[in-house]
Amino acid sequence: MNICIINGPNLNFLGIREPEIYGKTTLIDITEQITSHAKSLGIDVTFFQSNIEGEIVNKLQQCYHDKVDGIIINPGAFTHYSYALTDAIKSINIDTVEVHISNIYKREEFRQHSVTAGSCVGVISGFGVCGYKMALNYFSSL
Amino acid sequence: MNICIINGPNLNFLGIREPEIYGKTTLIDITEQITSHAKSLGIDVTFFQSNIEGEIVNKLQQCYHDKVDGIIINPGAFTHYSYALTDAIKSINIDTVEVHISNIYKREEFRQHSVTAGSCVGVISGFGVCGYKMALNYFSSL
Amino acid sequence: MNICIINGPNLNFLGIREPEIYGKTTLIDITEQITSHAKSLGIDVTFFQSNIEGEIVNKLQQCYHDKVDGIIINPGAFTHYSYALTDAIKSINIDTVEVHISNIYKREEFRQHSVTAGSCVGVISGFGVCGYKMALNYFSSL
Amino acid sequence: MNICIINGPNLNFLGIREPEIYGKTTLIDITEQITSHAKSLGIDVTFFQSNIEGEIVNKLQQCYHDKVDGIIINPGAFTHYSYALTDAIKSINIDTVEVHISNIYKREEFRQHSVTAGSCVGVISGFGVCGYKMALNYFSSL
Amino acid sequence: MNICIINGPNLNFLGIREPEIYGKTTLIDITEQITSHAKSLGIDVTFFQSNIEGEIVNKLQQCYHDKVDGIIINPGAFTHYSYALTDAIKSINIDTVEVHISNIYKREEFRQHSVTAGSCVGVISGFGVCGYKMALNYFSSL
Amino acid sequence: MNICIINGPNLNFLGIREPEIYGKTTLIDITEQITSHAKSLGIDVTFFQSNIEGEIVNKLQQCYHDKVDGIIINPGAFTHYSYALTDAIKSINIDTVEVHISNIYKREEFRQHSVTAGSCVGVISGFGVCGYKMALNYFSSL
Amino acid sequence: MNICIINGPNLNFLGIREPEIYGKTTLIDITEQITSHAKSLGIDVTFFQSNIEGEIVNKLQQCYHDKVDGIIINPGAFTHYSYALTDAIKSINIDTVEVHISNIYKREEFRQHSVTAGSCVGVISGFGVCGYKMALNYFSSL
Amino acid sequence: MNICIINGPNLNFLGIREPEIYGKTTLIDITEQITSHAKSLGIDVTFFQSNIEGEIVNKLQQCYHDKVDGIIINPGAFTHYSYALTDAIKSINIDTVEVHISNIYKREEFRQHSVTAGSCVGVISGFGVCGYKMALNYFSSL
Amino acid sequence: MNICIINGPNLNFLGIREPEIYGKTTLIDITEQITSHAKSLGIDVTFFQSNIEGEIVNKLQQCYHDKVDGIIINPGAFTHYSYALTDAIKSINIDTVEVHISNIYKREEFRQHSVTAGSCVGVISGFGVCGYKMALNYFSSL
Amino acid sequence: MNICIINGPNLNFLGIREPEIYGKTTLIDITEQITSHAKSLGIDVTFFQSNIEGEIVNKLQQCYHDKVDGIIINPGAFTHYSYALTDAIKSINIDTVEVHISNIYKREEFRQHSVTAGSCVGVISGFGVCGYKMALNYFSSL
Amino acid sequence: MNICIINGPNLNFLGIREPEIYGKTTLIDITEQITSHAKSLGIDVTFFQSNIEGEIVNKLQQCYHDKVDGIIINPGAFTHYSYALTDAIKSINIDTVEVHISNIYKREEFRQHSVTAGSCVGVISGFGVCGYKMALNYFSSL
Amino acid sequence: MNICIINGPNLNFLGIREPEIYGKTTLIDITEQITSHAKSLGIDVTFFQSNIEGEIVNKLQQCYHDKVDGIIINPGAFTHYSYALTDAIKSINIDTVEVHISNIYKREEFRQHSVTAGSCVGVISGFGVCGYKMALNYFSSL
Repeated sequence: MNICIINGPNLNFLGIREPEIYGKTTLIDITEQITSHAKSLGIDVTFFQSNIEGEIVNKLQQCYHDKVDGIIINPGAFTHYSYALTDAIKSINIDTVEVHISNIYKREEFRQHSVTAGSCVGVISGFGVCGYKMALNYFSSL
Repeated sequence: MNICIINGPNLNFLGIREPEIYGKTTLIDITEQITSHAKSLGIDVTFFQSNIEGEIVNKLQQCYHDKVDGIIINPGAFTHYSYALTDAIKSINIDTVEVHISNIYKREEFRQHSVTAGSCVGVISGFGVCGYKMALNYFSSL
Repeated sequence: MNICIINGPNLNFLGIREPEIYGKTTLIDITEQITSHAKSLGIDVTFFQSNIEGEIVNKLQQCYHDKVDGIIINPGAFTHYSYALTDAIKSINIDTVEVHISNIYKREEFRQHSVTAGSCVGVISGFGVCGYKMALNYFSSL
Repeated sequence: MNICIINGPNLNFLGIREPEIYGKTTLIDITEQITSHAKSLGIDVTFFQSNIEGEIVNKLQQCYHDKVDGIIINPGAFTHYSYALTDAIKSINIDTVEVHISNIYKREEFRQHSVTAGSCVGVISGFGVCGYKMALNYFSSL
Repeated sequence: MNICIINGPNLNFLGIREPEIYGKTTLIDITEQITSHAKSLGIDVTFFQSNIEGEIVNKLQQCYHDKVDGIIINPGAFTHYSYALTDAIKSINIDTVEVHISNIYKREEFRQHSVTAGSCVGVISGFGVCGYKMALNYFSSL
Repeated sequence: MNICIINGPNLNFLGIREPEIYGKTTLIDITEQITSHAKSLGIDVTFFQSNIEGEIVNKLQQCYHDKVDGIIINPGAFTHYSYALTDAIKSINIDTVEVHISNIYKREEFRQHSVTAGSCVGVISGFGVCGYKMALNYFSSL
Repeated sequence: MNICIINGPNLNFLGIREPEIYGKTTLIDITEQITSHAKSLGIDVTFFQSNIEGEIVNKLQQCYHDKVDGIIINPGAFTHYSYALTDAIKSINIDTVEVHISNIYKREEFRQHSVTAGSCVGVISGFGVCGYKMALNYFSSL
Repeated sequence: MNICIINGPNLNFLGIREPEIYGKTTLIDITEQITSHAKSLGIDVTFFQSNIEGEIVNKLQQCYHDKVDGIIINPGAFTHYSYALTDAIKSINIDTVEVHISNIYKREEFRQHSVTAGSCVGVISGFGVCGYKMALNYFSSL
Repeated sequence: MNICIINGPNLNFLGIREPEIYGKTTLIDITEQITSHAKSLGIDVTFFQSNIEGEIVNKLQQCYHDKVDGIIINPGAFTHYSYALTDAIKSINIDTVEVHISNIYKREEFRQHSVTAGSCVGVISGFGVCGYKMALNYFSSL
Repeated sequence: MNICIINGPNLNFLGIREPEIYGKTTLIDITEQITSHAKSLGIDVTFFQSNIEGEIVNKLQQCYHDKVDGIIINPGAFTHYSYALTDAIKSINIDTVEVHISNIYKREEFRQHSVTAGSCVGVISGFGVCGYKMALNYFSSL
Repeated sequence: MNICIINGPNLNFLGIREPEIYGKTTLIDITEQITSHAKSLGIDVTFFQSNIEGEIVNKLQQCYHDKVDGIIINPGAFTHYSYALTDAIKSINIDTVEVHISNIYKREEFRQHSVTAGSCVGVISGFGVCGYKMALNYFSSL
Repeated sequence: MNICIINGPNLNFLGIREPEIYGKTTLIDITEQITSHAKSLGIDVTFFQSNIEGEIVNKLQQCYHDKVDGIIINPGAFTHYSYALTDAIKSINIDTVEVHISNIYKREEFRQHSVTAGSCVGVISGFGVCGYKMALNYFSSL
């Protein structure tokens, strides 16, 4: 099983970015934790991060051509306005799980709505790094 | 570790209720699956279901007195208007995870907002029965 | 034929409650009038009233187990916010008619919307006690 | 007793028009069914249909001059915007019942509100042709 | 003079519940303070608390049968959505005063509106336990 | 000088229609009063009333062909939704004054907005029959 | 007959202020025109202008003590937010006519609503200086 | 192939009506241009214009009886509120193309929404007379 | 203890102003009743009334310089829009109680929201003159 | 004549992407059909597709430098939020036609509004591939 | 060059007023700093502060008569509702710069909109006292 | 001192783009003016412009690594929807000033709100090129 993990804008600044909200763990730490968890589940994981919306659309389309089995996406701020991601996820017809590090329901009004979640299998929000692992568990249980 | 799993209104009708949305598994089946998963994680689970909002508030308060370690709640329709549950979860100061069987972002407009989620650690939505297990995994990883 | 007639909160105060809106007939009078009309149509009727939302959900579920043929419900104030009732009516898969004594379109803004009506066969509003009888006529004509 | 039954725009296309919503019965069939039901109640009925809003206003005013005892109106699409009908019904001071063939609460957002219902005695929605008969029963019971 | 004091959901958790907002005084302490103040005014007070909306409706109706002279109600979270309470207060025709411990105008958006206040004589908000005593003073001054 | 006075739907029912709002004077009385006032100002007036929106559009276009000097219109309920009238008034390029018998700012919410007023020279609202005469005075003063 | 004409903020800058909207006539010119028109109708007029909301409230109260027969008010920008004026006009119980020089329905969104108009007999909008004279005509015709 | 071209209110005033928006070409000129273009495509065209909403409904129903192959409609102002047209187009089950002379997205807020477009195959807006020809080209290409 | 009681616009017209809402007691009567009640509590009271928003801001600032112990304010219509008062109350850092004679939740929509209440300790609404006394009781109990 | 045809995000997945909405034709097929149609009209066409909003802005600016005669753009999901495209189209001062394959008025709420259309000559929506050809016809007819 | 600096309500309480938002510098300190900066730029400055909206309107009109070259205004709370100021600034036709000490975009919702800014040359928000100096620099650079 | 000046989409078209709004100065001219002004203040400036949202996020992150002292950003159209920029500015923890060439409060509705301004120190809007210099002055004054 082959899962692609996509992180959106500013997530490469984890550890630097507002640590009182997003914690002190860096994206590299997270990547290691997830890889190790995936290995324990017998899942192959690849990682992608970009601050450019269209490059994430490109990557999602690449996943289609690469016959990826599942996608875990944290769209970052794109969650709240990127209908291009919404459409891309629908277009490629691959099970996708949306993950948020913080609980979006405890944040500002605009962060409480996701335009991309309706194209996904489901959403996991508020569990920090653990959210990515929970998503892997979901794929593992299929 | 001691987790209480609370299901709100109409969830005792799982398997009967709109199976194209909620699946054919009954609440009893789910209870068994969760219990068995909890056992594998070394977690004690107790279950509670009620169609009466105030009885769920009572149960949440009982969890406080029983020194429960964590709560997994699927508030059902109460998700969308029960500020009494919102307050109860905040009052008892126990880590609570909100779970929805279906992906609320694929449902009618009114189901896309949760008034209770802001009082919880986080939200898991759209993974069917697996959502409860993912919540247990989260507690297990603490 | 077997019809259950459910009245929501404060409807047991008919005759006492704001008589300029709801009339002076008590719930007992209404029950008698409906019973007599039902008898003339060869329909068996049972009655239930509760001020507790969840008990009405329980009753609706009981109707499912009792294989009731149809339900007439006046959800009272629950009409305007009880998504739990909305879901319960959908869950049990029994033809349900919503009745309001007063014409909700002549009332305050919040009373003009029904969150439960979309789960019902149809709605009858504004005809006083006669509304219940019209609902019985509908079931009788099936 | 003398009741006028008024049907608004596109209701002359019943049977042709979106049969999955409005059924296959034509307006002529409906007229016959209603006439026969009225006869059984000892009520005289006359019928009027128009696609032109102002002609319906004219007809309502004619009902005033003709001293009609009651009106049953299905305003069709005018339900949602014709304040001219709203005013006309109020002007003539005759008991009027609003009928909808489909349950407007199951339809698109804009169909869930009626600007004319507040001028009527009450509303019957979702019972197909039976709705007109229920309205006649109401007048018959006065 | 005979006043009934009704507290809604989670108010039995005063002292435990978010003390930075609601203070550290428990409901029992409050009850004592109010009783002693009532005695000094020559008023008899009885107390009722429930987390179940419908039980509060039941209690309000009981007050009608018991010919209570006045009611002081803190509807807790029900303030913001319980139209059943709104109707119950109107139905029983007894002077009712709404009390809030915290100043609702300093709270979250949804807490700034009361659906029940329009059925009451008036509202007292933000004075902690003192609010209940001020309400008693009002009744005493009639 | 040549002024056309146009009255919209239900204004032919003045005197009959809700007299507590619109008064007891009939449209014929009004016509006489206006004619006599116009005569005193040396203005020729013609009158038109219709319940059909499109006939009023037709009449407005006729005014263009007839080289009418000015128009006084009371669009009745069309005030609140007839963009066809809005466009017609703009199309014909003749000074038009909008008149309302009652003060629309004292009426229901929907009556407080006029979609046609923006195409007119100005609006006179609330002065009963006198409003038409004030409009004539305006034209007379040009 | 004794009419007080009150002009609100910035109306003393007529002739200077945005002449493409409000014209080139100064407030002094207007005062003269109105005085002369009033004289021809046998009406005594007094004038008041202030940029201070509360001074206009004071003046309105003075009108009450002075037993003024009627008031013509152009509240200027206060039209759109001064509930203090709304209340003052209601408090003094004197027939008041609201006048606007420009047609508020052709202006920016916020200018299309009047919070004061509901306390007045009626509104005249869009006729320039003529509006004040039309208001005098109205009082003269009483 | 047999196409009916329907123009709504005020479109008979093209050339007269606000020429800076709608151009100086009259409806007769347009009719000629379209006829000639249709001839070149081997399409028969008939024309209908009315200012009366219900007559357009009537015409649409006539198209059904006449077995017209396609309809091109410019509903004029009815675009923004005529649900009767919306329903009529759906009722007759004939491919209909909505055309607007001006680009509605450059106009006032209320003109930017079409209630009729959802019943049509598609919409062409902003190309002047050319829009009708483009619609013919579409039918010709089927 | 030293309390300043501030009344906003039109409250000097109590007794004259809409007596069915505000009662027949004049501001002078109220002043006397409050003074006498204050004396019984051993509180010194001073009174201020103005129809001018900025003078009330000035007075509030004066209270700061005079080291007043507490303020009771009835902002009248300013309650609903005067952010200048909101800021002034916050600026001076003196406990302030907002009082309304009528129950604002029973009034028009715009009167149900207070922009000033969030700067105050609390709000008392609906108890007539008694509200001022209850506010004094609150200060007395500190 | 020299026309640039620009396709936005996910349009390179035509044929793969939700074929029940967008059809089975691929972007390559479409390109061929359009090229062949353009040739028949004597128009040179170039094509550009990107998933990256800013690259489309870059391309639009390049069109300005290349002195392109016209642009046909299908902004895909950017239609609904990309004010950067809105501005780019306005900046370059080249006639631009907006094309949508599906009828946006039959889609989800958010797809019914276009933020870019107001910068274009006009909009063609709902005609599949034919829409691009209709746009070419428009340019050809200039 | 001659610049008038106007400060609105509560700005005379700078240094006292919520120092965590507005800083500890008093209005007198600010006046000195600005005067000294103005001197260095060769600009004459005068200062005006009032808590009374209409006095600021008066002052703005005085600036017109005094032929002031430019105005710097911090309308304080009036920013959010004083259309009288909006109109006054437009009326006098003098370049006006709006300054806010705090960044209004970091404040409560209601503070994020300015009704006066549209009448000004531009807005400077969030730079504390420095904002006034930046405004002077702007005038100096003309 | 080291300041980075970032310009968003379409700002490289200054001088070409809608010169009646944005002026005729090109971005190159502006760059020169700013550089020269910065030199006079002893500030080092670097410039960056991109039409691609994510490249601006990349640049902002680069500023963090480059230990830039301050940022001046004109986000162009991204001002109104780019939450990715909002987050990026917050993430890097560098004082950032938002500049707009035109006064956004005089523009279309959607341009009057900034989603990025809340992450910045402050905002300068409406002063043309001078706005950038004012921002430099601000940094220079720290």
